[in-house]
Amino acid sequence: MYGKKVWFFPDGDRPPFGDSLMKGHESYIVLNPNNADAHLSFTLYFEDREPVRDIKMTVGAERVACFQTHRKEHFGEYVLPLSTQYAVKVESDTPVIVQYGRLDARQENLAYYTTMGWTGGE
Amino acid sequence: MYGKKVWFFPDGDRPPFGDSLMKGHESYIVLNPNNADAHLSFTLYFEDREPVRDIKMTVGAERVACFQTHRKEHFGEYVLPLSTQYAVKVESDTPVIVQYGRLDARQENLAYYTTMGWTGGE
Amino acid sequence: MYGKKVWFFPDGDRPPFGDSLMKGHESYIVLNPNNADAHLSFTLYFEDREPVRDIKMTVGAERVACFQTHRKEHFGEYVLPLSTQYAVKVESDTPVIVQYGRLDARQENLAYYTTMGWTGGE
Amino acid sequence: MYGKKVWFFPDGDRPPFGDSLMKGHESYIVLNPNNADAHLSFTLYFEDREPVRDIKMTVGAERVACFQTHRKEHFGEYVLPLSTQYAVKVESDTPVIVQYGRLDARQENLAYYTTMGWTGGE
Repeated sequence: MYGKKVWFFPDGDRPPFGDSLMKGHESYIVLNPNNADAHLSFTLYFEDREPVRDIKMTVGAERVACFQTHRKEHFGEYVLPLSTQYAVKVESDTPVIVQYGRLDARQENLAYYTTMGWTGGE
Repeated sequence: MYGKKVWFFPDGDRPPFGDSLMKGHESYIVLNPNNADAHLSFTLYFEDREPVRDIKMTVGAERVACFQTHRKEHFGEYVLPLSTQYAVKVESDTPVIVQYGRLDARQENLAYYTTMGWTGGE
Repeated sequence: MYGKKVWFFPDGDRPPFGDSLMKGHESYIVLNPNNADAHLSFTLYFEDREPVRDIKMTVGAERVACFQTHRKEHFGEYVLPLSTQYAVKVESDTPVIVQYGRLDARQENLAYYTTMGWTGGE
Repeated sequence: MYGKKVWFFPDGDRPPFGDSLMKGHESYIVLNPNNADAHLSFTLYFEDREPVRDIKMTVGAERVACFQTHRKEHFGEYVLPLSTQYAVKVESDTPVIVQYGRLDARQENLAYYTTMGWTGGE
């Protein structure tokens, strides 16, 4: 099996849609290259309040999924507020690979922001 | 030998060419710093259908190659559709180092998106 | 515990605020996913003078913090000069995950620059 | 000692200066956090010709250095041609941390492109 079961993303910040052709958004893109479905649990960390825990999502075997923080069908009641610092931990029962992407359209042209997540322990 | 034999890229998304001076595109850039040719096999993962497997490419010993997802000479019949979420696994018989780059020109100015691939298992 | 106790960032360069809606800035975003507070010490490296050592910051247990290099409440007397190459080491008594982000607004539209920090020894 | 002695960068591509306020360029930023000077050797890889080997540079103990590919004082006779795919290996006798940065100004607004280098062997 390829991938890891725990991933971290320090710099989450949901951008507004903006007025451009491309709408501003941010995404956690999860690749499950293995033969079993991956059941994910997201934890959201904030600057000044307790984490929101155990937001559940699923990625099928040998599939990729793109979870966007403004979508109720992905984050339910935990849709992220705009322009607020937060961070994410992704846990999975099957190893996966997770990347973060942001498209900012607050000005005329889009700007991109991406990083692979971080894995590993002390 | 330097490098790894398996690389993952969760966030593939082929941009349109756009109307700018620079044409939008995305690339998988493969460095083979070793003394033997590297024979690669790409697997493409999608959101809602089976993977496309075993697209073959080659990188010579001590050479770099840039594989662009809109080029038939690189991806053959598997040229990627536009603006569609997909992911990639790159396997190689010789260790290599693989980076992803996207140039988006859907608006007046270009935007860049890059990450080193992820390697490693559970 | 998740994370690492030492992180490196080679490419620091504080941008001017600029004239755009979004003000130019750079940040070190620290996620502490563990159950103990993290006491951080930043070291700043320069091209042609001795490092500035032991700038202290704190991130609470299960919190994220965004330290911006133009803020006196974060960097005190060590607020970074503009457009000057420097680098950072972050040390922590509790494992953390650290990402760097820059928003450049020197021209009409913003440009983003981010990377996860690097950890590890020889 | 912190850092690694060998770093790889698959996607080098020197941009033109352009007509913007900020001039287009690309850089290899090397942090030497250790107590001994780092003597570096760059190898440049190309698509269709032999590598250029052993371009020498130095980074002092506890210093950061920014090597730009258009500068003769850094790359000597090996200043990179414009808009040509190449890749880099950086070797050092003292462990270092190396990041790549590109500022593209071919259109009105700048675009950034960065990644930490990759280290490790099979």
